[in-house]
Amino acid sequence: MKNNFEIEKVTENNFHDFLYLINKLAEYEKKNPPDIYAQKRLMDDYLIKNQKYYAYLGRIDNNFIGYIFYYFTYSSYKALPILHIEDLLILKKFRKKGFGQKLFDFCIIKAKEKGCTHVEWTVYNWNTAAIKFYEKNMATCLDKFYYQLKIS
Amino acid sequence: MKNNFEIEKVTENNFHDFLYLINKLAEYEKKNPPDIYAQKRLMDDYLIKNQKYYAYLGRIDNNFIGYIFYYFTYSSYKALPILHIEDLLILKKFRKKGFGQKLFDFCIIKAKEKGCTHVEWTVYNWNTAAIKFYEKNMATCLDKFYYQLKIS
Repeated sequence: MKNNFEIEKVTENNFHDFLYLINKLAEYEKKNPPDIYAQKRLMDDYLIKNQKYYAYLGRIDNNFIGYIFYYFTYSSYKALPILHIEDLLILKKFRKKGFGQKLFDFCIIKAKEKGCTHVEWTVYNWNTAAIKFYEKNMATCLDKFYYQLKIS
Repeated sequence: MKNNFEIEKVTENNFHDFLYLINKLAEYEKKNPPDIYAQKRLMDDYLIKNQKYYAYLGRIDNNFIGYIFYYFTYSSYKALPILHIEDLLILKKFRKKGFGQKLFDFCIIKAKEKGCTHVEWTVYNWNTAAIKFYEKNMATCLDKFYYQLKIS
């Protein structure tokens, strides 16, 4: 099965599958998925206006089984781009088969192509499977807290 | 003194002061400051090429006493921009006078203008003064770890 795995750019043609996968990640993270207005903005901000994010799907034959969603930020000390992974999902029944690794490695390739200083991401502290995966990949857990202030 | 505080956009004219302040933050955080090549890229990526970040200085009369450095990222669930504060510094002798609050409030105004869903930032877990400040501002500390993988 692993041999049939391919990474495909999100386009107009597979956007519906992409939205389905975002919904599955939101379900897993117990968050509200994009509503119909947010779905429209996701299309606008990727296909129509200046592209605000990058997204690729993992495909096995005709089935989309996961995705990555990333964008580039910037390090003030290094003055180089950072590839920030916002989302990385492999659907439950396809986990532990190396597909997440392939999506993660793809991000590293993209970061190298862009001349990034590093790849960054956050992970929920309850997501032990993901944490184990990142530790296996020799990633560093920073001594930082992540804060957020909602804008009303 | 508080009445003389002004927020000034980073430009070619004050770029030297901006670099000085980044150095002061790196010193405070015990990190390597931008080397001469990074300083050149900071200029290129702000003044010459497509702008990769936003930066403003806090000024009292003719003295630059702090700065903010931010960029916009993107929420996949909300499909709205996020204002990510990369750096916020007030020089030591000007702290606890409300200037940090003014720079922070300025970021919130910018986030509202841009239609952001929220403002985000990270803080070192040893920086108790900053943590106290963010808690006072009703910010939420997310249940997330922050990971990084260096690109060689």
